[in-house]
Amino acid sequence: MNVSMNVEDYMHELGGRARAAARRTARASSAERSAALEAVAVALEADRAVIRRANEADLAAGSAAGLDAPLLDRLRLDDAAIDRMIDGLRQVNVLPDPVGAITDLNFRPSGIQVGRMRVPLGVIGIIYESRPNVTVDAAALCLKSGNATILRGGSEAIESNRAIAASVRRGLAESALGEDAVQLVATTDRAAVGHLLRMQEYVDVIVPRGGKGLIERISADARVPVIKHLDGNCHVYVDRAADAAMAIHIILNSKCQRYGVCNAMETLLVHAERAAEILPAAEARLAAEGVEIRGCDATLAVLPQANRASEEDWYEEYLGPILAVKVVADLDAAIAHINHYGSAHTDAIVTADYAAARRFLAEVDSSSVMVNASTRFADGFEYGLGAEIGISTDKLHARGPVGLEGLTTQKYVVLGDGQVR
Amino acid sequence: MNVSMNVEDYMHELGGRARAAARRTARASSAERSAALEAVAVALEADRAVIRRANEADLAAGSAAGLDAPLLDRLRLDDAAIDRMIDGLRQVNVLPDPVGAITDLNFRPSGIQVGRMRVPLGVIGIIYESRPNVTVDAAALCLKSGNATILRGGSEAIESNRAIAASVRRGLAESALGEDAVQLVATTDRAAVGHLLRMQEYVDVIVPRGGKGLIERISADARVPVIKHLDGNCHVYVDRAADAAMAIHIILNSKCQRYGVCNAMETLLVHAERAAEILPAAEARLAAEGVEIRGCDATLAVLPQANRASEEDWYEEYLGPILAVKVVADLDAAIAHINHYGSAHTDAIVTADYAAARRFLAEVDSSSVMVNASTRFADGFEYGLGAEIGISTDKLHARGPVGLEGLTTQKYVVLGDGQVR
Repeated sequence: MNVSMNVEDYMHELGGRARAAARRTARASSAERSAALEAVAVALEADRAVIRRANEADLAAGSAAGLDAPLLDRLRLDDAAIDRMIDGLRQVNVLPDPVGAITDLNFRPSGIQVGRMRVPLGVIGIIYESRPNVTVDAAALCLKSGNATILRGGSEAIESNRAIAASVRRGLAESALGEDAVQLVATTDRAAVGHLLRMQEYVDVIVPRGGKGLIERISADARVPVIKHLDGNCHVYVDRAADAAMAIHIILNSKCQRYGVCNAMETLLVHAERAAEILPAAEARLAAEGVEIRGCDATLAVLPQANRASEEDWYEEYLGPILAVKVVADLDAAIAHINHYGSAHTDAIVTADYAAARRFLAEVDSSSVMVNASTRFADGFEYGLGAEIGISTDKLHARGPVGLEGLTTQKYVVLGDGQVR
Repeated sequence: MNVSMNVEDYMHELGGRARAAARRTARASSAERSAALEAVAVALEADRAVIRRANEADLAAGSAAGLDAPLLDRLRLDDAAIDRMIDGLRQVNVLPDPVGAITDLNFRPSGIQVGRMRVPLGVIGIIYESRPNVTVDAAALCLKSGNATILRGGSEAIESNRAIAASVRRGLAESALGEDAVQLVATTDRAAVGHLLRMQEYVDVIVPRGGKGLIERISADARVPVIKHLDGNCHVYVDRAADAAMAIHIILNSKCQRYGVCNAMETLLVHAERAAEILPAAEARLAAEGVEIRGCDATLAVLPQANRASEEDWYEEYLGPILAVKVVADLDAAIAHINHYGSAHTDAIVTADYAAARRFLAEVDSSSVMVNASTRFADGFEYGLGAEIGISTDKLHARGPVGLEGLTTQKYVVLGDGQVR
């Protein structure tokens, strides 16, 4: 950053460069974009020592500032983490290129041919918290999908992010895209984020990656559209017609395979006619994993040792070894509970009943709805998107895991030979 | 409106009813939604006299308030206009139903099957100006796509809109959707719009229909996502390799077939090597239509009688018989001009050059890009969407003409038989 510049001028300069770079990136051929990503991988390899030194400076500053161990862990870039970063970039680079595909090109009665072409969104702003590897992950997804990006990482990772961004830009400098296809907001001044969120002339979409607090603040301030991922209050509903063994299996996996993730189950719903059978069996397994149960009255009638759930529990994303449990009268009550208390992220039914499965899929208003599968499958890799930049809980544009396609849009193409109206 | 209620409470009551109705509407079968739309058509037929009386009250109030003749014309609902309204509704009703379609249901290595299901957005708020027929058009598109809607029309059409909405709701009352699938904001209090734009818990998207001023105000105030249609500053670029007769034909049609529409050409770009040939021929035809030309210096060199364009002219959406004309050095200059000054609505190239056509399609960043066709084709009916609720100049979600599909979204569906991670 030019120190004589104020933050607003600085951000507008970044924006103008990003817009120009986005035109170049969108125009580049698939081969040119691939070559640019490979050049970035090579540059990161070469700059490994510089990146590690910068990261050590962040870690030292973080320790001195009293960051806790998990935060320092997320901040740390050892050689293995740098390897994973470079591998991830190369994995994105071999994904199918979404840009330029024309679909549904049909003749109309007027003689024109109308279709849709998939094109980059333009300039994508990414705002993220402490993990510096996001700098490379996000840049790779944006470049592969033909976009330019402005990255704004956490202040605790500023030295690491500067070193990584410098390396990425060195790789891009000699490519057809040019170095400005990836820019880092190099100041930790918080006013920079405010400008980024409002530069509609330069930024097409903001993707925040971080906790709910960060995302709510960004959504409230943004004038640029935001692809947001709020909470994941995911449900498993064990239907009257569920296979008991399958239900226990899916309950355990959805809750316990990992606790701190957005696609873990937070509330279990059980059909009233199956509560006396399913709940004790599930409780035995959950207790062995150290999971606390917070139940409704009907749950406590079966599991008297469980804690009582409050109204707030039905809204809660615990991200830990706690599970809310409710007994419901029927499928309708299950669907109504999920649509009322859920966060429209991912919800599953366990059932052998065809009609119940069809109704659950159609009527639960969430980004992923599942039959007889663990909620933990809600993930870009598991869905075959190759990689994801996040999971959208919005309804417009991208919903659910957002991969390369979510970073593009479609425009209409019309081919004629002189037609007029 | 319950007169004892304040506007905020009233709007939240509307919102809550809309959310409940949206669940019913989304759950309804295709046949139930069709039957509901036909019941609305029958109710409108039956209530024709009531609607005409209400409209006469609006017309009388409008005359007394000094509304000009074109505004009164747009407000008028004679029998023919009511017929068109009912016909339009039945035309929407026979369109293919987009709801529930599942696409790309593929097996993944884990054994789960992942696909995407098209589903309604939920509750759509429509804010529109004086034409009362929009009340029926918008309701029909929202219902057909499985959504509930909250309609807010112009205050000058309030009596007409109330009568139409009452009739629509009477038709819906005995259907599976219920009357609250369509609600009209029955107060003309402007605070109602402010609440509508911020009720994120009840409204999924706002579609404004009206002038640029209305849409800019709505976009600035909304916390709910907006599908917006700003201006249509459309271009025709006559390339070096253009067929002269085709170019003149497309220029005339794009500019003169109708002036006050968003897909009319506002700026003509001509390759420098063709200016001396194309511009005089075009000017002769445009002058006969009464079109004023505002040209750059190179244009004035060929057409000395034309007016000089100012910098502002390149940004202008005239919506009238004025045309800005610029001579450009080459294809690159044409693309750069359009991407800089245009409004990303619709732009066309006239060329016989394959490579120029491909580059124009790929690099012009507009919602519709055309080769050898009039910009006037940018329209939902012409594109085969059947009907449109508007033309989006946004990049996210819907871009270009927005039909039934633009009022839906896709969620992921996962089918398993007990898979866990």
